Amino acid sequence: MGYDKVDELAINTIRTLAVDATFQANSGHPGAPMGMAPVAHVLFNRFMTFNPKNPEWLNRDRFVLSNGHGCMLHYALLHLFGYAVSLDDLKNFRQVDSITPGHPEAHDTPGIEVTTGPLGQGIANAVGLAIAQRQGGAVFNKPGFELLNNHTYAFFGDGCAMEGIASEAASMAGHLQLGNLIAIYDDNHISIDGDTACAFTEDVLKRFEAYGWHTQWVEHGDTDLEAIEKAIAAARAVTDKPSVIKLTTTIGFGSKLQGTGGVHGNPLKADDVQQVKEKFGFDPNKTFVVPQEVYDLYNKHASDGAAAEQEWNQLFEKYGKEHPKEHAELVRRMKRDLPEGWQKALPTYKPSDSAQASRKLSEAVLEAIHDVVPELLSGSADLTGSNNTRWKKAVDFQPPSTKLGDWSGRYMRYGVREHAMAAVMNGISAYGIHIPAGGTFLNFVSYAAGAVRLSALSHQRVIYVATHDSIGLGEDGPTHQPIETLAHFRALPNFMVWRPADGNETSAAYYMALTSRTTPSLLALTRQNLPQLENSSIEGAIRGGYVALEDKEAAVTLVSTGSEVSLCLESVKTLADQGLKARVVSLPCWEVFDAQDKEYKLKVLPDGIPIMSVEVLSTLGWEKYSHEQFGLNRFGASGPYKEVYKKFEFTPEGIAKRAVATVNFYKDVKPLRSPVNRAFQQLI
Amino acid sequence: MGYDKVDELAINTIRTLAVDATFQANSGHPGAPMGMAPVAHVLFNRFMTFNPKNPEWLNRDRFVLSNGHGCMLHYALLHLFGYAVSLDDLKNFRQVDSITPGHPEAHDTPGIEVTTGPLGQGIANAVGLAIAQRQGGAVFNKPGFELLNNHTYAFFGDGCAMEGIASEAASMAGHLQLGNLIAIYDDNHISIDGDTACAFTEDVLKRFEAYGWHTQWVEHGDTDLEAIEKAIAAARAVTDKPSVIKLTTTIGFGSKLQGTGGVHGNPLKADDVQQVKEKFGFDPNKTFVVPQEVYDLYNKHASDGAAAEQEWNQLFEKYGKEHPKEHAELVRRMKRDLPEGWQKALPTYKPSDSAQASRKLSEAVLEAIHDVVPELLSGSADLTGSNNTRWKKAVDFQPPSTKLGDWSGRYMRYGVREHAMAAVMNGISAYGIHIPAGGTFLNFVSYAAGAVRLSALSHQRVIYVATHDSIGLGEDGPTHQPIETLAHFRALPNFMVWRPADGNETSAAYYMALTSRTTPSLLALTRQNLPQLENSSIEGAIRGGYVALEDKEAAVTLVSTGSEVSLCLESVKTLADQGLKARVVSLPCWEVFDAQDKEYKLKVLPDGIPIMSVEVLSTLGWEKYSHEQFGLNRFGASGPYKEVYKKFEFTPEGIAKRAVATVNFYKDVKPLRSPVNRAFQQLI
Repeated sequence: MGYDKVDELAINTIRTLAVDATFQANSGHPGAPMGMAPVAHVLFNRFMTFNPKNPEWLNRDRFVLSNGHGCMLHYALLHLFGYAVSLDDLKNFRQVDSITPGHPEAHDTPGIEVTTGPLGQGIANAVGLAIAQRQGGAVFNKPGFELLNNHTYAFFGDGCAMEGIASEAASMAGHLQLGNLIAIYDDNHISIDGDTACAFTEDVLKRFEAYGWHTQWVEHGDTDLEAIEKAIAAARAVTDKPSVIKLTTTIGFGSKLQGTGGVHGNPLKADDVQQVKEKFGFDPNKTFVVPQEVYDLYNKHASDGAAAEQEWNQLFEKYGKEHPKEHAELVRRMKRDLPEGWQKALPTYKPSDSAQASRKLSEAVLEAIHDVVPELLSGSADLTGSNNTRWKKAVDFQPPSTKLGDWSGRYMRYGVREHAMAAVMNGISAYGIHIPAGGTFLNFVSYAAGAVRLSALSHQRVIYVATHDSIGLGEDGPTHQPIETLAHFRALPNFMVWRPADGNETSAAYYMALTSRTTPSLLALTRQNLPQLENSSIEGAIRGGYVALEDKEAAVTLVSTGSEVSLCLESVKTLADQGLKARVVSLPCWEVFDAQDKEYKLKVLPDGIPIMSVEVLSTLGWEKYSHEQFGLNRFGASGPYKEVYKKFEFTPEGIAKRAVATVNFYKDVKPLRSPVNRAFQQLI
Repeated sequence: MGYDKVDELAINTIRTLAVDATFQANSGHPGAPMGMAPVAHVLFNRFMTFNPKNPEWLNRDRFVLSNGHGCMLHYALLHLFGYAVSLDDLKNFRQVDSITPGHPEAHDTPGIEVTTGPLGQGIANAVGLAIAQRQGGAVFNKPGFELLNNHTYAFFGDGCAMEGIASEAASMAGHLQLGNLIAIYDDNHISIDGDTACAFTEDVLKRFEAYGWHTQWVEHGDTDLEAIEKAIAAARAVTDKPSVIKLTTTIGFGSKLQGTGGVHGNPLKADDVQQVKEKFGFDPNKTFVVPQEVYDLYNKHASDGAAAEQEWNQLFEKYGKEHPKEHAELVRRMKRDLPEGWQKALPTYKPSDSAQASRKLSEAVLEAIHDVVPELLSGSADLTGSNNTRWKKAVDFQPPSTKLGDWSGRYMRYGVREHAMAAVMNGISAYGIHIPAGGTFLNFVSYAAGAVRLSALSHQRVIYVATHDSIGLGEDGPTHQPIETLAHFRALPNFMVWRPADGNETSAAYYMALTSRTTPSLLALTRQNLPQLENSSIEGAIRGGYVALEDKEAAVTLVSTGSEVSLCLESVKTLADQGLKARVVSLPCWEVFDAQDKEYKLKVLPDGIPIMSVEVLSTLGWEKYSHEQFGLNRFGASGPYKEVYKKFEFTPEGIAKRAVATVNFYKDVKPLRSPVNRAFQQLI
């Protein structure tokens, strides 16, 4: 309590920095920063513990700006508190290669925890950050050693509140009783279409109450700093429920257009900039002004944060003496290293081993490695028994009061909430000491597409366990059979799509997924059984593609993935009956294969032999690796899967017929280049 | 009121049919049909008006099974009431080419209104069906002529209730005060992971109350038919709010496993089938039994429905005399015809016309055609001013009490709810007399991916107005710049992705979108200005691709879309300076180009000349039309768009450099085939 002129000055400094930066960029969103500067000031300066000199300190409080378009608010704070964000960086707001992009990006800017802007993502990330704290705390905290006890704070606006992903995440947070999560809802009644009265008239607090949240309303969010502080303090006092504070504010506070949509996504006009500065006691002719008192005030809080980290470091050192095993483990996990030799636990298979569905092979991997990779948090969007994501002895991550698990549990019950699951996993990963894996049907990863793309953009090590990966799921039919899905995610940068053909390839997919620290992965897995292949190995598969069947006299190369590799191998016999020799390539991961050297790629897919791809999904993109494509550019069918395969001619005969056509068609082309032979390199 | 043995028999007939069909298929979901048979019986036989002999009757009550996995419930009802669904069809449940697929598909089965199964979609479709009734009623009803006054009923389960899309749609329905919408929430406490206590403990009714719904709870949904009837009657009496009835039921009622997850997604075991039948008084040794009393009961209701349609037809005939214009219009719209000559209203452009962003060109189309195409309902997910989806004189579709519009309004304020927008549009289209168009940024169509795929699968004429279609949006940065998005939707079957290069191509895109009755479209539109091209025409563009610049001596073909076509044309001059002649092809829609005859395709992309594609998004799939690809297989950057283009070398020089490399690389290949020249046809 007790706010004076310097607090006011700090708040108005944040506001004018946002005004100046958006004006200079001639682009951006001044409204939210101007409206939320008071709560940001109170929160950052009175409640949050962080050390700007070490934004990676594990037990820092987390802050998420779910309404990421208001990022100048956060950039201004980062600068004022002394993070490595300079005044010049603010002047470069929204310029190419600056560290102050149009929306906050986690890996670009020190102090930005998660990548936000796409609405609703941030609040779901915050739920993940809070889960990670709860789980990590349950594992590592010991009597006298409250190593992990940080809070997660999130701001969100009307836009986020309307998004389904936010609803899913809030329902989940309520169920999980995440008392370490405090969200501030910026109730400014404005979205891009103007007054929210045109589309959004629900009672938001009542909805959050229904989810099980603690709710409060601060009526005068523009000015009533004491009420803001009181509400945040009250929220912190509630430990068995997440809290939301509805804060009624005026968007663009101070502008001539305050309270209107005009100030949401456009810089202020020049005369408005001037009058805002005059109103706030700033020189209207100067830009990017920070009064020394403001630096001093925030430096003081930053020093307190640095001291808090020092104290924590000492505690952690002492912890190392009393709990050396846990200490070493946490140190390892903070470095994102895996335990020495963990990969020896990965199952390997011989051709004589029984045929199994790759979802079961995935289960076998989880069963084999969960003990040696304790940072792995598995889970599913209500398809546990179908995705096979749960190892036998798994304990659910649950509030102990539910008697269904405890806080140290490593199995997440995400509910039927695919989009939130993905964004929550991004938050869990961003906390820094976990690797989340979450299951759903491949077709329903599409529900989560908005968050999956942010896994990739923000470099999170997240694993999507995507079972029922094709028409091979059979009877559930076209509503559940992915066609476009692999093309979609193969086109996503920094994202590994794996479609393993057998047990060794499934182990290889997990090996790469777990060891790629900054790249998320999707594992497309079958419902139906697959035989163990003759030439498969983890070593071959981790190159993204390898020769599954070599024949120096081959007239055609068949390149395939997953369930169709063994089908291609069968069709080789059919072709042999017709006097044609064929070789087979398994290409479980394009992203990884693309990264191999050209020599290797040409050994796998050599010049001079026509190549035909075989995969029971859209052919789109297969032209990268093949001259001709056999796939499914239509929706599937409901029926027993063998019948469905037959309907679409995915049989040895159907493959052979097309392989023959391919061979004949390319007979006259000289030289016949492999498609991996390119005229120029792609930008990366 | 007044239920007797025959009602009970009917309910148990539905249950045993579901048991038999899933058992015979050895696949499917008996639990929901067994639990919801009572409410389905009361609803269909006591409240709903429909004529099984004409499932297309416009004013029928609509029924949506949002928990589509329970489709045997609906298939059984369709059979019993006399729709063209035979007992043999039920016996063929989940078999290839049957009309009883694993989840309900609108175009496959008479009486199925919308395609459901992917959870949450159906309830959002139901909101769209209710909107279409309200809007259509406001336009066509006249004093004494209540032509359109049907109800929309939807069942949904816990799975749907957890999905974000359902939250979005419910919030929207509450805002819109859709009193013609009645939803039954099957509160059976079971999802695939077992008891919902593990993930879903919110207060669902309170949440719906917060959205503005009328809520009721029926505690004994397995047996209390009178209470069910009373609740539905009460819901019908509420005309200014949507209604939800929470119905507590026992999943798999009658089974030995009733009330457990074991009965959700697996057929009953043989002995359980027997005991269920015995329990319900059926012969345990007979299958697919329908007592004649049940047929009689339902036939009676079906006859009432047929009579109701007769009465309506007479009313409609009378309407034709008093309101001939409206009558003719409604007849036309029911046939999904467009008004004669409407296309003359489409704007056309000369090269001398000013450069414009294609989002503005799209706005010009809407401005020009909205009067002549009155079935067009535009809207946006809160980006009206950015998507340019609203014509100047548009009236919002709003409850009159809001004073923001009225029920006849043709502009939808979807709020920041992309996924619900798409599914609501599917529902609007399914009602049968509207063409919905909805805007968001291209990148955020991904939020709606689950529903977009159902637009395609269920053949809805829905238009996605997807602006800000590339790094050309500039400062908003990588979080908003689509990379993978076009590849994703190009891989989706029965879906047109348009990326027009100028005004004529934008008009062509709308022409095709509006005239393709069973194919949805996405229009990818720029934020930045584009010049009007020399050789563009509606006639050329509606073939999906055409030659934008011919040169008989060309050494290379540049193929491109949207904003990069004019860039390619500029690069032709750069190449000319280097002594290289080039031709340019504009390929605004692959789906449509693919459908042209081979001769035309080879004229556009001829043999013998190397082809390079140019598009500032993922190159994935461009190999279909080009030998080499220049694109962006990484995330973009935040900055003024010209700077961003420069950073990635999307300049005349950057294109020319790669075109030269392409020409040199393919010099030695004979014959050099066009990639549209294929060895065999794809399955379609």
